[in-house]
Amino acid sequence: MSIAEEALKIHKEKRGKLEVVGKMKVECSKDLSLAYTPGVAEPCVQIAKNKEAVYDYTIKGNTVAIVSNGTAVLGLGNIGAEASIPVMEGKALLFKEFGGIDAFPICLDTEDPEEIIKTVKLLSPVFGGINLEDIKAPECFYIEKRLKEELDIPVFHDDQHGTAVVVLSGIYNALKVVNKELEDVKIIINGAGSAGIAICKLLLNAGAKNIIMCDRHGAITENQDFINDAQKAIAKVTNREMAEGELKDVIKGADIFIGVSAPGILTKEMVSSMNKDSIVFAMANPVPEIMPDLAKEAGARIVATGRSDFDNQINNVLVFPGIFKGALEVRATEITEEMKLAAARGIAGLIKEEELSETYIIPKALDKRVSDSVSKEVKRIARECGVARI
Amino acid sequence: MSIAEEALKIHKEKRGKLEVVGKMKVECSKDLSLAYTPGVAEPCVQIAKNKEAVYDYTIKGNTVAIVSNGTAVLGLGNIGAEASIPVMEGKALLFKEFGGIDAFPICLDTEDPEEIIKTVKLLSPVFGGINLEDIKAPECFYIEKRLKEELDIPVFHDDQHGTAVVVLSGIYNALKVVNKELEDVKIIINGAGSAGIAICKLLLNAGAKNIIMCDRHGAITENQDFINDAQKAIAKVTNREMAEGELKDVIKGADIFIGVSAPGILTKEMVSSMNKDSIVFAMANPVPEIMPDLAKEAGARIVATGRSDFDNQINNVLVFPGIFKGALEVRATEITEEMKLAAARGIAGLIKEEELSETYIIPKALDKRVSDSVSKEVKRIARECGVARI
Repeated sequence: MSIAEEALKIHKEKRGKLEVVGKMKVECSKDLSLAYTPGVAEPCVQIAKNKEAVYDYTIKGNTVAIVSNGTAVLGLGNIGAEASIPVMEGKALLFKEFGGIDAFPICLDTEDPEEIIKTVKLLSPVFGGINLEDIKAPECFYIEKRLKEELDIPVFHDDQHGTAVVVLSGIYNALKVVNKELEDVKIIINGAGSAGIAICKLLLNAGAKNIIMCDRHGAITENQDFINDAQKAIAKVTNREMAEGELKDVIKGADIFIGVSAPGILTKEMVSSMNKDSIVFAMANPVPEIMPDLAKEAGARIVATGRSDFDNQINNVLVFPGIFKGALEVRATEITEEMKLAAARGIAGLIKEEELSETYIIPKALDKRVSDSVSKEVKRIARECGVARI
Repeated sequence: MSIAEEALKIHKEKRGKLEVVGKMKVECSKDLSLAYTPGVAEPCVQIAKNKEAVYDYTIKGNTVAIVSNGTAVLGLGNIGAEASIPVMEGKALLFKEFGGIDAFPICLDTEDPEEIIKTVKLLSPVFGGINLEDIKAPECFYIEKRLKEELDIPVFHDDQHGTAVVVLSGIYNALKVVNKELEDVKIIINGAGSAGIAICKLLLNAGAKNIIMCDRHGAITENQDFINDAQKAIAKVTNREMAEGELKDVIKGADIFIGVSAPGILTKEMVSSMNKDSIVFAMANPVPEIMPDLAKEAGARIVATGRSDFDNQINNVLVFPGIFKGALEVRATEITEEMKLAAARGIAGLIKEEELSETYIIPKALDKRVSDSVSKEVKRIARECGVARI
């Protein structure tokens, strides 16, 4: 049976992947009077007196909404709210399994950003954080920006920032292996969608100085037409030498290639034209920009992909459980840039110097130590940034 | 330690009463590829092709949203969305414990009916049913009416209909004990809020002919001013003899008193003025309209209250798990009047003729047989009504 067939069978047998269970039993009338009436009135009264007590007496402090409208799901595109549910359930499963966080799918039947913003705000009382997921660009930028401004709980678009954090963590360790500094390297990011832009921003915040973003037309420069404000903003702070041309032109001499684009677009010739000890992150899924064996043959020293069947898998599951765990544990009002950098360090730092190698720059996706390492670092920095409530 | 203190302690220790857990583990990379990428794409694709398949591959078919805005919580009144969360969590706990249903609290930070309607519609994809809870009148009537019209899943305001169903089930059995027929008895309902009106409607649908509703000013008649449309509508079909006066006047000769009003308003004199073999449902909580011992002294043959420390507890937990269970199992598009009557029969029918007595007209709140009995009857009738999808 193929993975697809088996997945279909399991989803059908189990009728979805989540259940909502009680932390206490209701077996006698005393249980009922503690969990429900009349006892339940007391925590209600305490919260009515002091809204912050909602973190003490309810699930809010450990609960995340996974919000999607199904407009950009996996490689499937705009499949709608209902069809996005299996992905959001899977995400919730991973939140629990890796972060101990209770996450619930909120799949919204609308493509209107204002309706999404309004709805998320209205239902925010029960949630300690909002994970935006699989919402298409450019709406995702606007929705996240507005919600970050208007809510006092963390709002995190995982397709952007989760990807950016895990890429940065891999880059940190890859650079250690090849003995180069982030400040010095030339980086090409191919793919200027929401993930590409988020990766670029985080790399800049981490200290990278020389990044060229490419889309299907080639290098993005400041003086061209842009499809959205996010691209426009990023063009002002990248490609400062105004290099023009296709990917094959600008990749010459680059130290790092980061692909969030399309299968097979990176050729052996392009890799060969890169600087010595080159690093290739080919993350198109399921078929990467270049297959790892080809990239190695062409001279790449370190190759990472999104796939579990090759070394160095770049997987968001290394990020979202831990970053939310850290944010929730200190009741953070937001997830700042500094907390994302902290998360990247938390992931990278798990691999000891002596373990680091070309084929082991990033922990395995299922490494259960990761979320604690991430959350610890994230909590510390949240307190330093002043966004921690406790 | 008092119940209130103990409840507060438990809520704080556990940080709420619910958790969201996986129905499958993610321990190896195969698990990950089945629950998440790439396998999860297959159920997504199936649902995108045929929206009805959402019931096959996701949690929708067993999941209920408990929607509140916290405007009418227990006896606490309008305490807001955050402060209502402990009640909604408790309700979710009972849904799972008694019906095996996964319910999740959706506590909305708004008092605007249009915003509530819009929000519930937008987030309905992931839910198989909507349980409205603790929303104040008259908004609750309008919100439920609109959602019933505009959604193709069951929408059920438990404060109205859950209460009505459990009262009717108790009345069915009480009448058997006293050997009277619903068609013949004179019924007083004291309290013309959302619960009182719902009880009245359901009793009429069940065959009652002679009901007088009272509010704090006394008997409601057709030719007076009304505070809302729901009261106006009910006045046209009750009190056909246009009796006027206070409760103490119109209760004379009544067979049944149903109180959803205020502590202590029913006096011994009033009970004494009722017909022989009178039935008193005094459901004000925690202090009933009359204490059971006083009602008995005054001649009532059967007394029921909302309290667990007396016989004949009238508790909604006998209704909502089973009625939703039945509705979900046949993927009902709505919960009809006939399904509510079926639920009442399902509860009442659990007590065998030989078990029936003045002090045992209704199953215990924790009787785990109830939800199956209710759901079985509800499913049968849903199919008969043509509202079952399967």
